[in-house]
Amino acid sequence: MLKGFSVPLTPQGLSPLVSLPPWHYSSDCLVVEYWADSEAVTALLPPGVSSDAKSNGRSFVWFLDWQFTGSNDEHTDPARYQYREAFVLVEAVFDGKPINYCPYIFVDNDAAIARGWAQGFPKKLGSVFQTRSFSAPSAAAAPLAKGSRFGGSLAAHGERLVTARIQLEEKAENPAAIFNRPTVMRRYFPQLSAGLQEKPAVDELTMSLTDDLAVVDVWAGSAELRIPEVQGEDLHSLAPKRVGRGYRLGMSYSVTDLRILKNYVR
Amino acid sequence: MLKGFSVPLTPQGLSPLVSLPPWHYSSDCLVVEYWADSEAVTALLPPGVSSDAKSNGRSFVWFLDWQFTGSNDEHTDPARYQYREAFVLVEAVFDGKPINYCPYIFVDNDAAIARGWAQGFPKKLGSVFQTRSFSAPSAAAAPLAKGSRFGGSLAAHGERLVTARIQLEEKAENPAAIFNRPTVMRRYFPQLSAGLQEKPAVDELTMSLTDDLAVVDVWAGSAELRIPEVQGEDLHSLAPKRVGRGYRLGMSYSVTDLRILKNYVR
Amino acid sequence: MLKGFSVPLTPQGLSPLVSLPPWHYSSDCLVVEYWADSEAVTALLPPGVSSDAKSNGRSFVWFLDWQFTGSNDEHTDPARYQYREAFVLVEAVFDGKPINYCPYIFVDNDAAIARGWAQGFPKKLGSVFQTRSFSAPSAAAAPLAKGSRFGGSLAAHGERLVTARIQLEEKAENPAAIFNRPTVMRRYFPQLSAGLQEKPAVDELTMSLTDDLAVVDVWAGSAELRIPEVQGEDLHSLAPKRVGRGYRLGMSYSVTDLRILKNYVR
Amino acid sequence: MLKGFSVPLTPQGLSPLVSLPPWHYSSDCLVVEYWADSEAVTALLPPGVSSDAKSNGRSFVWFLDWQFTGSNDEHTDPARYQYREAFVLVEAVFDGKPINYCPYIFVDNDAAIARGWAQGFPKKLGSVFQTRSFSAPSAAAAPLAKGSRFGGSLAAHGERLVTARIQLEEKAENPAAIFNRPTVMRRYFPQLSAGLQEKPAVDELTMSLTDDLAVVDVWAGSAELRIPEVQGEDLHSLAPKRVGRGYRLGMSYSVTDLRILKNYVR
Repeated sequence: MLKGFSVPLTPQGLSPLVSLPPWHYSSDCLVVEYWADSEAVTALLPPGVSSDAKSNGRSFVWFLDWQFTGSNDEHTDPARYQYREAFVLVEAVFDGKPINYCPYIFVDNDAAIARGWAQGFPKKLGSVFQTRSFSAPSAAAAPLAKGSRFGGSLAAHGERLVTARIQLEEKAENPAAIFNRPTVMRRYFPQLSAGLQEKPAVDELTMSLTDDLAVVDVWAGSAELRIPEVQGEDLHSLAPKRVGRGYRLGMSYSVTDLRILKNYVR
Repeated sequence: MLKGFSVPLTPQGLSPLVSLPPWHYSSDCLVVEYWADSEAVTALLPPGVSSDAKSNGRSFVWFLDWQFTGSNDEHTDPARYQYREAFVLVEAVFDGKPINYCPYIFVDNDAAIARGWAQGFPKKLGSVFQTRSFSAPSAAAAPLAKGSRFGGSLAAHGERLVTARIQLEEKAENPAAIFNRPTVMRRYFPQLSAGLQEKPAVDELTMSLTDDLAVVDVWAGSAELRIPEVQGEDLHSLAPKRVGRGYRLGMSYSVTDLRILKNYVR
Repeated sequence: MLKGFSVPLTPQGLSPLVSLPPWHYSSDCLVVEYWADSEAVTALLPPGVSSDAKSNGRSFVWFLDWQFTGSNDEHTDPARYQYREAFVLVEAVFDGKPINYCPYIFVDNDAAIARGWAQGFPKKLGSVFQTRSFSAPSAAAAPLAKGSRFGGSLAAHGERLVTARIQLEEKAENPAAIFNRPTVMRRYFPQLSAGLQEKPAVDELTMSLTDDLAVVDVWAGSAELRIPEVQGEDLHSLAPKRVGRGYRLGMSYSVTDLRILKNYVR
Repeated sequence: MLKGFSVPLTPQGLSPLVSLPPWHYSSDCLVVEYWADSEAVTALLPPGVSSDAKSNGRSFVWFLDWQFTGSNDEHTDPARYQYREAFVLVEAVFDGKPINYCPYIFVDNDAAIARGWAQGFPKKLGSVFQTRSFSAPSAAAAPLAKGSRFGGSLAAHGERLVTARIQLEEKAENPAAIFNRPTVMRRYFPQLSAGLQEKPAVDELTMSLTDDLAVVDVWAGSAELRIPEVQGEDLHSLAPKRVGRGYRLGMSYSVTDLRILKNYVR
């Protein structure tokens, strides 16, 4: 009997990149609100998702330092159960309702790629860093306090794709500004057989579902953001035309399900 | 119009991990023939694939230094278009015919993961090295000559999974010993929606198809192989009970198609 | 005018691996107390440092997640100003006084190597991880609380050198158990000119000096530790014969000076 | 008795980053000739080294894929005994004689850093790639033949520092164009003790010595080169004002000695 949620399936079940849910997560997050070119946003949306006229290109870059676990304290094996992630969310509309759509996402861990593809997150490998907040006081500690400065960066294949900096100003009593839309993705798995290479085996619009979502210690402040043009990546089409607020927060949730909004194949 | 063989699909088509075929490859290869526990081999085979009684656990570990390209000299961007790979092939039988089945494979590049999953190779990230042969003469050059020694190693998450060494003895006039069976894989993409997590969306038995296969400069010799037990990986169930010959060769081919042998879903 | 504390010296002063002190640091730390073979400890001590008869091989493995900065918020560039470290300290005696001597240390950042060598820490590159404590509640959060479990791991060149786990039991009111000895190192820079290769240009016994040391949130608990034998590394000579307590704490300090205890060259 | 050319010194002698010479090397090399701003070149030269008026900023970028070994087939442990390197050489004059001076150099291996610093190469960690030439014919093989194209890239901390491409035109019968000057470096090891931080313990001008140098299979052709401005690195001060020829070659040598040209400390 072969076990595993993802390949490689094995009798013992240790080697599969992903085990069956639930998957539990906790992270520190650095977020920058900004406005991209609204036509560039629209050009990235899948069928049935339309641009949000009121958003005018409003987007978010997130940097996340994740720790995850199954049900057996897997996070005590930190070489496997930590990863860093950066993604872009663009505001859009599906079925008349405001959503965030995820066109780009990068992680530094293969289990995160496997889980992400199963959900619809179009993950690639990247090198991601964010300034951390440490408890021992120091000029290097970046405490959660007015005036503290944090940076984030994303690179892939030795090209710097995103550089961000924020400076904390105040605790955000109402984080709804950044958490008021569900996240929608495109779940996609191609076929390689000749004649079928443009007819994916799986092509669905999905919505991320989270159990026990907690958002804690939200701070807001000023922000800077750069998304330079590099060879071999299209991310700069979403470069900032204007930069809004920066946020720093903690977030946790569990994943046990996925909603399929639309099946493009049938 | 969104382009790409794999995610992320973009209007410009640079960001997708994989573009539409053809994909062209060339590599140097280090191969060790060995015999694993035949019951452990059988336990890894998918439905419809049976153990080869004559093989008695015969298996191969391959280390490959790859360069790949599409049709536009992409290999002149070596940070993206090179990768290193290690995999295990076990001898088995499908539909009465001898095959090699691939239960484990590791690469150090995300495009290689995406192409591999589309074919059915259960790729994970790993750190892979093999001794190279250089043209400038030196004690460090490892020329293709009698007595030259080569090593290979595979690690994942900081655990050494495989260590191999070979010593060249003679040119292998007939490399059929290692190339007499097609490679068969399991193409698998799960569903995350509650209630469907053990019912994959894609679950097929596939056969790798290669165009313009070339195998050059094949040398054979003695070999050593270790597959130690480590935490968090099942690969050691295929540890060597006996080690056979070692091989060093060059190999190239193109990929434009995939054969589906069996669909487990329908 | 060329600037820099370390190479490469440049007119602009951005490229040097290290700028002039002060250097400010803050970290999270996972520590395991244990007893190594006392003869193996003695065999690693430099001239003038002797074994501590009362210690009987008492040693510590530390895992540290560091953030560091100069005087200009350099830590907002986290791709350069974070690193992970693991080291071993062995109890010994110098000049009649109890010290900790550092025979092995690994980091994942070149600036940390350059600063370390200038101090006398014999740093090599490694891949280091420790379980983190996150503020958003989750099975993955590892809060600082009774029962929380943390792991640490060190690998180099794809060989796992150390694996540790601790489980928190109680706040340690008196962390003197792990901070009662100064750290002593051997500062060493060789000569390559023929005939001088065993006569180092710099060979000193040094003591680490820290300004504004802060140790916070110290928890103690049970511990496990493995230092397996691997090819190409001698660290396993300090494998645990007995394991003591585990600790988890925050630590910060600044570096502006170094004490030279002994000059072996003159 | 503690052994090792470099730290960490151990009784067994496996852990030291570097063992006593001889060190044997073989590599594939991609080289681009170009002209930098001559004042920027002059600003990087150490005391006693002056700009070469006839050179007018002539410089070279090298990419090297190295394999190295001691006297015991260490290169059969390729995870430790391979590395990739990129450096810049600028033409200059010392003691009335033409030399190449090395202001910047990057590698991806800690043993290479330790050997480099002992020689005077100001090595930092980087991510380096060059197109390889494979023997199995393919669009991906990049054979040594007219029309073949090769690329090279250097990144550090996720910033792309150099991107180069060459296209082979002809075998270079006389490679003296790129090998007519010895390489000169600054060997430098600082002091950290307060008051001495700008008085290095070792500060010498050195010349690289190579035994049994072999240069093989030299091809020349056209070249492109970009050295963009990035945050945190000064390398772009040597950006190309004009690009010359590109070269691809094999090179091997052994190292057993170093010449000290000048001691800045005394």
